[in-house]
Amino acid sequence: MPGYTHLQRAMPVLWSQHMLSYGFYFANDLERLRETAKRVNRSPLGSGALAGNGFNIDRDMMAEELGFDGLLWNSMNAVGDRDFVTEFLQWGSMFMQHISRWAEDLILYCSAEFGFITIADAYSTGSSLMPNKKNPDGLELLRGKAGRAFGHMAGFMCTQKGLPSTYQKDLQESWEPMLDHAKTISDSLQIANGILSTLTVKPEKMKAALDPFMLATDLADYLVRKGVPFRETHHISGRCVAKSEELGIPMNQLSLEQLQAIDSRFGDDVAQTFDYERSVEMRQSKGGTSKARVLEQVKVLKAMLE
Amino acid sequence: MPGYTHLQRAMPVLWSQHMLSYGFYFANDLERLRETAKRVNRSPLGSGALAGNGFNIDRDMMAEELGFDGLLWNSMNAVGDRDFVTEFLQWGSMFMQHISRWAEDLILYCSAEFGFITIADAYSTGSSLMPNKKNPDGLELLRGKAGRAFGHMAGFMCTQKGLPSTYQKDLQESWEPMLDHAKTISDSLQIANGILSTLTVKPEKMKAALDPFMLATDLADYLVRKGVPFRETHHISGRCVAKSEELGIPMNQLSLEQLQAIDSRFGDDVAQTFDYERSVEMRQSKGGTSKARVLEQVKVLKAMLE
Amino acid sequence: MPGYTHLQRAMPVLWSQHMLSYGFYFANDLERLRETAKRVNRSPLGSGALAGNGFNIDRDMMAEELGFDGLLWNSMNAVGDRDFVTEFLQWGSMFMQHISRWAEDLILYCSAEFGFITIADAYSTGSSLMPNKKNPDGLELLRGKAGRAFGHMAGFMCTQKGLPSTYQKDLQESWEPMLDHAKTISDSLQIANGILSTLTVKPEKMKAALDPFMLATDLADYLVRKGVPFRETHHISGRCVAKSEELGIPMNQLSLEQLQAIDSRFGDDVAQTFDYERSVEMRQSKGGTSKARVLEQVKVLKAMLE
Amino acid sequence: MPGYTHLQRAMPVLWSQHMLSYGFYFANDLERLRETAKRVNRSPLGSGALAGNGFNIDRDMMAEELGFDGLLWNSMNAVGDRDFVTEFLQWGSMFMQHISRWAEDLILYCSAEFGFITIADAYSTGSSLMPNKKNPDGLELLRGKAGRAFGHMAGFMCTQKGLPSTYQKDLQESWEPMLDHAKTISDSLQIANGILSTLTVKPEKMKAALDPFMLATDLADYLVRKGVPFRETHHISGRCVAKSEELGIPMNQLSLEQLQAIDSRFGDDVAQTFDYERSVEMRQSKGGTSKARVLEQVKVLKAMLE
Repeated sequence: MPGYTHLQRAMPVLWSQHMLSYGFYFANDLERLRETAKRVNRSPLGSGALAGNGFNIDRDMMAEELGFDGLLWNSMNAVGDRDFVTEFLQWGSMFMQHISRWAEDLILYCSAEFGFITIADAYSTGSSLMPNKKNPDGLELLRGKAGRAFGHMAGFMCTQKGLPSTYQKDLQESWEPMLDHAKTISDSLQIANGILSTLTVKPEKMKAALDPFMLATDLADYLVRKGVPFRETHHISGRCVAKSEELGIPMNQLSLEQLQAIDSRFGDDVAQTFDYERSVEMRQSKGGTSKARVLEQVKVLKAMLE
Repeated sequence: MPGYTHLQRAMPVLWSQHMLSYGFYFANDLERLRETAKRVNRSPLGSGALAGNGFNIDRDMMAEELGFDGLLWNSMNAVGDRDFVTEFLQWGSMFMQHISRWAEDLILYCSAEFGFITIADAYSTGSSLMPNKKNPDGLELLRGKAGRAFGHMAGFMCTQKGLPSTYQKDLQESWEPMLDHAKTISDSLQIANGILSTLTVKPEKMKAALDPFMLATDLADYLVRKGVPFRETHHISGRCVAKSEELGIPMNQLSLEQLQAIDSRFGDDVAQTFDYERSVEMRQSKGGTSKARVLEQVKVLKAMLE
Repeated sequence: MPGYTHLQRAMPVLWSQHMLSYGFYFANDLERLRETAKRVNRSPLGSGALAGNGFNIDRDMMAEELGFDGLLWNSMNAVGDRDFVTEFLQWGSMFMQHISRWAEDLILYCSAEFGFITIADAYSTGSSLMPNKKNPDGLELLRGKAGRAFGHMAGFMCTQKGLPSTYQKDLQESWEPMLDHAKTISDSLQIANGILSTLTVKPEKMKAALDPFMLATDLADYLVRKGVPFRETHHISGRCVAKSEELGIPMNQLSLEQLQAIDSRFGDDVAQTFDYERSVEMRQSKGGTSKARVLEQVKVLKAMLE
Repeated sequence: MPGYTHLQRAMPVLWSQHMLSYGFYFANDLERLRETAKRVNRSPLGSGALAGNGFNIDRDMMAEELGFDGLLWNSMNAVGDRDFVTEFLQWGSMFMQHISRWAEDLILYCSAEFGFITIADAYSTGSSLMPNKKNPDGLELLRGKAGRAFGHMAGFMCTQKGLPSTYQKDLQESWEPMLDHAKTISDSLQIANGILSTLTVKPEKMKAALDPFMLATDLADYLVRKGVPFRETHHISGRCVAKSEELGIPMNQLSLEQLQAIDSRFGDDVAQTFDYERSVEMRQSKGGTSKARVLEQVKVLKAMLE
């Protein structure tokens, strides 16, 4: 399929490479969540109203019995600290930002213009006015919920700003956003999972969207392999693109003579450059889009998720 | 000194207990920063424009040589991921929120009404109109900068929302907020440190602000130690507070007879309850304000910071 | 051109109708700016430090001489009110939100998949790696700056939250965001204007993207004009869409018999329904996409801008 | 009462002057609300799904019948414009910011240290642990809700950022924040009104908090009236403050000789300067704290509210 930057066709990539790019976002989200979950699981119990407990209660035992990972040590800190909420809201709003980008890609891909995927009916809706419409409502809602999740976080951080230490009633404003945040994320996960596991990929449409200009980098790389510096090959390849546009001939159909007129170092073997599969397979460094590297990424990702 | 909740005098605490409450906020900030620093230190190098590197470059070696802790694996993720910025901005805006609360406390404490501390002249300014003024400008700026830091984070998160995957030029909006964020935090740390190490604490003012009602909890605890349930002693102590207000006699000067008229279980030894030092020393569970527990917290905190 | 909702082709519209949709956003921005400019242009001078002026200064005369529209009356309000900054930041962040949506449309339209417009070279950049790329950097930056502008506003609102009345040094955090906001907006306007006045519209591409399904609403309307209720015609038209998909025949090439098999009320004259120009011209109520209504909108908009 | 800047005692003011300072914030809120209400009351009806209405419906008549003030003209704008929500959320979050500052002042004033007011029991709560506490919960909640209201606005603006034109399902995220915003503001208004109309002002406490240094500006002004430039009198008055601190004698009890030793232009009549009432009455320019000017402000404010 075409890989895009700036929403412009850039270079051929595998669909799996594209999906994996989000896999790593989400794996990092999981790593962050684990760190946060561990840190926020500290017990405030036994801090009294603010000065501590006057009956020699054993805070460690109480924390252990209740499944905490440790103590919020200082009693004044313990009664006024709502960082466990803030951290969760920051975490969730970043997670939902990833969801919003993932949804944006899929919304584009199920437009008529891209046409790379179809969303299952369960996650689409028709239009009450236009009988022809099939709208990716599920994806749009996911994208929109990123704003809602951000609002939870922004609101509660604003609430806390400049409060005196220890407990102030303002902190009661933590519960509603936290609970709605958890629900928003939980629902979004379920819906994203449903959309992903039911969408139809259309490989023929993806292939049809490839165009020879997307091999311009491979053309430059071809000359690099012949010893020409990239800063030079970049310009040579650019001239091939320009020539193709000028003549109205697809770049992969320029004759060897036409190419050699631009740079004499082009040889017979340049023809094999104009091959999308080969272009993909050439990206063989770690994390690249060649098949072997994609399979390797799957393993790495699975290990991260365990 | 008086410990406050809801900005109302609550119970006696040590100044060191109050300062330690912020120490633990900042120790958690440091823990978060270390986790973030480790996670964001992953190398995108060798990802090419989006599809990966076509020359079999050794990404691991390159990352190691440059001091990275690992790889941003997927090439499409690597070119579009700005979570290292978002994480830092989230971290910094939470840190500055702690600074804003710390500053708020100190601004209150250097008002004429509280009068617990004096800020060094280097961090105060006079007024161009009022010759009598000495304003805690340094602290107010720290409190205000919490908004600026929040704005960096909020702005960049808004910028990223709903972007397609891989690189979009919008992401260029990461640099200015990130650099200004780093500078804001670095300057704020230096100024906060300067203010803290040069302020004058006025223990006599802190003591003068203690009032006998702050021992009402101790009075309730006294009866608890005689076997009366807290739900009952809380009301009994509340009646002592009311009686004191009604008679216009400080609570610690109510006679034994007056106390016994409220509850016959008050004995001779109730007098020792009306002692602020003793109240502080009674909070002997971990994290409490008794001197031994404060010293223990200092050790714990130092260990967290190492 | 295709008009979109949910990024799905919906109904044919004129390019001018699309551009005008933003014209009205911006006209409302201008109306808001004028109201704000008038309100914030009130003089605080003569309020002293907070209590007022003790020398019987004539505040009205001073305000008039300096070009103010009136007074910030109360002296304590006057020294602590930074709503003139907040209002401007709220205004600007909403304006930039409109810019971000406008930019998003154009970024889509200059992708290879849509291909409706070309951005002038002055506002595009090539890629340092890919000789084939022409990226709409100018538009992406405009879209990204919406986040920056939002950050100014969010940050300063957070700074002000919970401050005591009158002047606090925190308010100094108003200047930098305000000045950067003004510059961001001013630059963005100039760039947006440059992009708009130099882009190339490709009508043939717009026409080529029209598809007969976009006339499904017109087909439903056709029956409505014959007296069938819309709730019924919506379903009939939907069945025509389904039949067309089933047979693999474009909807406008279904035979009269095929249509009448779905609903007998289709007549000979149904053929004229399958005409994109006619569809556009049918939208003749105020604000619709018919040519006359578009020209009327231009007049209305010009009047709003004066 | 003491007027404060930087939370430091600055100059004497009337309590009514302080309350009026918020009156003008709220009057401006009302002015903004009226403008917003008028602008957002425009009818989208008759815009169809995006292209306009095809049945020559009379949009003006329909708008008039339904009580709208005009049309959202362009059909594509009409279906995608949610500025009526954004404007309301921006308005409300600024209004709640004023509430948060008003609440902050009152929270300070009902602390033991200030003691200027008492909140009615209906808006205070006791502590479940500390029988002595009376916490201004109502005010703290109002202050905290400013964050919640900000979160509504920040969240929905983030949701809209970068959406394509016309309707996208993301816009459904407008309703919940808008409705909760309206309820938050409506409830806050009712509670703020309840607190204000039931609080007890303690004038004797306000007077007791005045200190002679707050007349330093009046002392400077005294010499200005004798023809000495303010830049000079500011320093002279500052020296009087310093002398008073050095000798431990309240500034208003410095002898004429002591004052004249600092500056020979002090005369017999300087004694009348040390009078808080007189200081207040001297602020006679418009908007000042003198009684006549306060009464004038009440009239101005009432006119604004009508």
